[in-house]
Amino acid sequence: MAGPSGKKEKVDKKEKAAKAGPSAGGGGGKKKKDVKKETGLGLSVKKDENFGEWYSEVCKHEMIEYYDISGCYILRPWSMAIWEIMQTFFDAEIKKMKVENCYFPLFVSPGVLEKEKDHIEGFAPEVAWVTKSGKSDLEVPIAIRPTSETVMYPYYSKWIRGHRDLPLKLNQWCNVVRWEFSNPTPFIRSREFLWQEGHTAFASKEEADKEVLQILELYRRIYEEYLAVPVVKGMKSENEKFAGGLYTTSVEAFIANTGRGVQGATSHCLGQNFAKMFEINFENEKGETEMVWQNSWAYSTRTIGVMIMTHGDDKGLILPPKVASVQVVVIPVPYKDANTQGIFDACTATVSALSEAGIRAEEDLRDNYSPGWKYSNWEMKGVPLRIEIGPRDLENNQVRTVRRDNGVKEDIPRGSLVEHVKELLEKIQQNMYEVAKQKREACVEEIRTWDEFINALNKKKLILAPWCDEEEVERDVKARTKGETGAAKTLCSPFEQPELPEGTLCFASGKPAKKWTYWGRSY
Amino acid sequence: MAGPSGKKEKVDKKEKAAKAGPSAGGGGGKKKKDVKKETGLGLSVKKDENFGEWYSEVCKHEMIEYYDISGCYILRPWSMAIWEIMQTFFDAEIKKMKVENCYFPLFVSPGVLEKEKDHIEGFAPEVAWVTKSGKSDLEVPIAIRPTSETVMYPYYSKWIRGHRDLPLKLNQWCNVVRWEFSNPTPFIRSREFLWQEGHTAFASKEEADKEVLQILELYRRIYEEYLAVPVVKGMKSENEKFAGGLYTTSVEAFIANTGRGVQGATSHCLGQNFAKMFEINFENEKGETEMVWQNSWAYSTRTIGVMIMTHGDDKGLILPPKVASVQVVVIPVPYKDANTQGIFDACTATVSALSEAGIRAEEDLRDNYSPGWKYSNWEMKGVPLRIEIGPRDLENNQVRTVRRDNGVKEDIPRGSLVEHVKELLEKIQQNMYEVAKQKREACVEEIRTWDEFINALNKKKLILAPWCDEEEVERDVKARTKGETGAAKTLCSPFEQPELPEGTLCFASGKPAKKWTYWGRSY
Repeated sequence: MAGPSGKKEKVDKKEKAAKAGPSAGGGGGKKKKDVKKETGLGLSVKKDENFGEWYSEVCKHEMIEYYDISGCYILRPWSMAIWEIMQTFFDAEIKKMKVENCYFPLFVSPGVLEKEKDHIEGFAPEVAWVTKSGKSDLEVPIAIRPTSETVMYPYYSKWIRGHRDLPLKLNQWCNVVRWEFSNPTPFIRSREFLWQEGHTAFASKEEADKEVLQILELYRRIYEEYLAVPVVKGMKSENEKFAGGLYTTSVEAFIANTGRGVQGATSHCLGQNFAKMFEINFENEKGETEMVWQNSWAYSTRTIGVMIMTHGDDKGLILPPKVASVQVVVIPVPYKDANTQGIFDACTATVSALSEAGIRAEEDLRDNYSPGWKYSNWEMKGVPLRIEIGPRDLENNQVRTVRRDNGVKEDIPRGSLVEHVKELLEKIQQNMYEVAKQKREACVEEIRTWDEFINALNKKKLILAPWCDEEEVERDVKARTKGETGAAKTLCSPFEQPELPEGTLCFASGKPAKKWTYWGRSY
Repeated sequence: MAGPSGKKEKVDKKEKAAKAGPSAGGGGGKKKKDVKKETGLGLSVKKDENFGEWYSEVCKHEMIEYYDISGCYILRPWSMAIWEIMQTFFDAEIKKMKVENCYFPLFVSPGVLEKEKDHIEGFAPEVAWVTKSGKSDLEVPIAIRPTSETVMYPYYSKWIRGHRDLPLKLNQWCNVVRWEFSNPTPFIRSREFLWQEGHTAFASKEEADKEVLQILELYRRIYEEYLAVPVVKGMKSENEKFAGGLYTTSVEAFIANTGRGVQGATSHCLGQNFAKMFEINFENEKGETEMVWQNSWAYSTRTIGVMIMTHGDDKGLILPPKVASVQVVVIPVPYKDANTQGIFDACTATVSALSEAGIRAEEDLRDNYSPGWKYSNWEMKGVPLRIEIGPRDLENNQVRTVRRDNGVKEDIPRGSLVEHVKELLEKIQQNMYEVAKQKREACVEEIRTWDEFINALNKKKLILAPWCDEEEVERDVKARTKGETGAAKTLCSPFEQPELPEGTLCFASGKPAKKWTYWGRSY
């Protein structure tokens, strides 16, 4: 129990008042205009009713700030901390694989950028060009990297001479720019974003193939273990693979509310195509010249957007404990005549105990907000677990925990605080993943005919269909499903293939099906 | 002892042969052309004879690679690891100070960029402009951030309302672009560089003043404790302070070989100037509107260049142990008939023991290079400590250590390997700092007259002079000393001021001197 029983209602009234407007909540020196929005209380739309608006509002508390250049966003500390936690995990994992970090320039000269034809065709429309410095025109316009294959590979050619120089495994954490004109969306589709890009070269295809999957497994872990977002590992179609590469594997997520797939991260085998263009050769042990086999792989701040879309609810964000910069918020629930100082001290002691145990905990002792206002505020920001301490709790030497994921309340003795909280955080992490997985699985529809396909697409399903795996057929499906909300396309052919009985036909072409493939609209 | 005594000469001969050319060294599949340069053995110039060429050569082993766009450089893993170690230190320290990381866009719209007049005058000539995306012209050209004051502060105005929103302390790790046309130099002056930039806002000047010095102390620690480079903390002159700020503090290093000062890092108090331009106001506890006080502070990859210039010698780089990604390299010195496998196993065991103790150690077991070649190669790369293990060492259950900083050799029993190596690394770190400090102090010349000033300047001294602290006088000194190698200017007025007897006159104007100030040419 948070407050003394019988008095609880009063707190709730205060909470309501706070939600309704600024008068009760204080406002701490806030300017009068727009106070409702700024107090951070209450979303103006529901997730199921207007997903786009809901997403934008949720992001504003306080993951991003919209910027005065369209398609660019400010990553505020609340989201940056999530990025840093993922980065720490991934960076350590790739270092175990002997990948080394480096930094290549932001700028590419046009000659180099255009060297690989398929590649530049894929990126050319989105390339931003610097043409001036100060008031002078540059002699030659210079491109800003949309990705760094063409930035890096001329130097791979220089550094790789003999088989002992292989494998070469480099990674960089950086910003890239793709000046897209389709709907910008925070995290999901922005003109500048942060990512890591790994670029590796091997003596044999076998080694390259193996690494592609090792990296893909790390991407799966980021989504499933850290962000609690279920993903499907699979192979991209010829149409959807990386421009200039041999094949592309990806982890694909699915946003149930919009019925859209979202490419979570990609791990490409580039084959020897770039090696040929950039003359990346080596002398093998027999003294013969061979071309290297290359991979490139990346994940970006898009991950954060997928997490927000997957877990958020009508109260705001829900952050998985493993990536939340604040895992537990401790809120005093004082009551007149009660031992306010004792309550405050208990809050501080609770935060200390949790912090010492490595749990990221904070107290909210602000005196200009009611407990109810604080509950809503921290719910909006998605903190996984709230601890309330009121007079009754003090008396009983307990604290009250409230889970953000399912609202479940529990009174726990202060003596076993740390163990209980650790356990709760693990349960929340696990539950968020399970709930998201069930939600996604409820969206999967296995179809066999064109009519079933269209029907499922209209119902915003994640469609699993038998396919002939022909480029022309995918293009045809795109053309036939083109509409206001975009066309359907392949998301991936999952590595875990259901059985494909002999004689199964492609849903779109009627030709013999070669594999099961996920289809849908996508981000 | 590395090899069996009496046979040592043979190894040395091998070493010489290796140094002379590719024939003895093997070359591991290297292409024939340019083999000398590529084997990484031997610099073609001496530090004292042609410092510029020496620096460029040393950087190429393997800190940077020159890039096909002038003024841009590739940071290879060998330098990136140093950057990451400094970053880990600094990031943890500022987090203790409750600074939070964020990420603001690379792009600035012209209106915002130009809002603070003095500021934009300082940066305008160096701003790179994006005017096209794909084949289309942008409606309005967009600038690439040369620094982020004007990028960030419109949002500070939005976020800061009441005194409870203060202090606001943000930092970002990012790239910035300054399209300079003066001599580009790796790390020291490049068109794109990596840095952190902190931007903080306070309710009072006192808080801002205090933070300026706290951050400056962290910068001192990066230079002195990590990079083993002595610096002077001080105040920049009015001419040299940050464009648009109130005052600038800095840590200043000095490169004895060129007689040039180099601004190591800066911590600015911006006062209320930006607050005024960007309307960053808050309601204080009395309900009155006040303007915030702001700071900004930054250090960049320039730090690495200063370190290279300070410590390197005619054999190549010398890395301080605290920032070296490889602190100890272990090299087997096999000899025919000797127990080669035993030697190799001892090397591996040595690396394991050191690694387990948290020392960054690597073995070099390549069979296509002689020990002598390896010695030179790792000396070139600046690894602080080399361990050699030969047949005699195996017999006596010892290893031989060779310090990179002073060449001192020592045989140490394997039983106390870890303690000895730890101690040696600390000694190397300390000694590198002491040597650099002595070198710098030998360059300081205290002068009182114009003739002494010119004389000292010609002798490439770090000049400490009594100064009247007038802007006009500094401009005059610059004009009178202008030459091919640049003009002399103030570096900083050190916080630790020598006594200034009453009646002391300014060396340049003859007016009463107000303070002691360091002068010199600078990078």
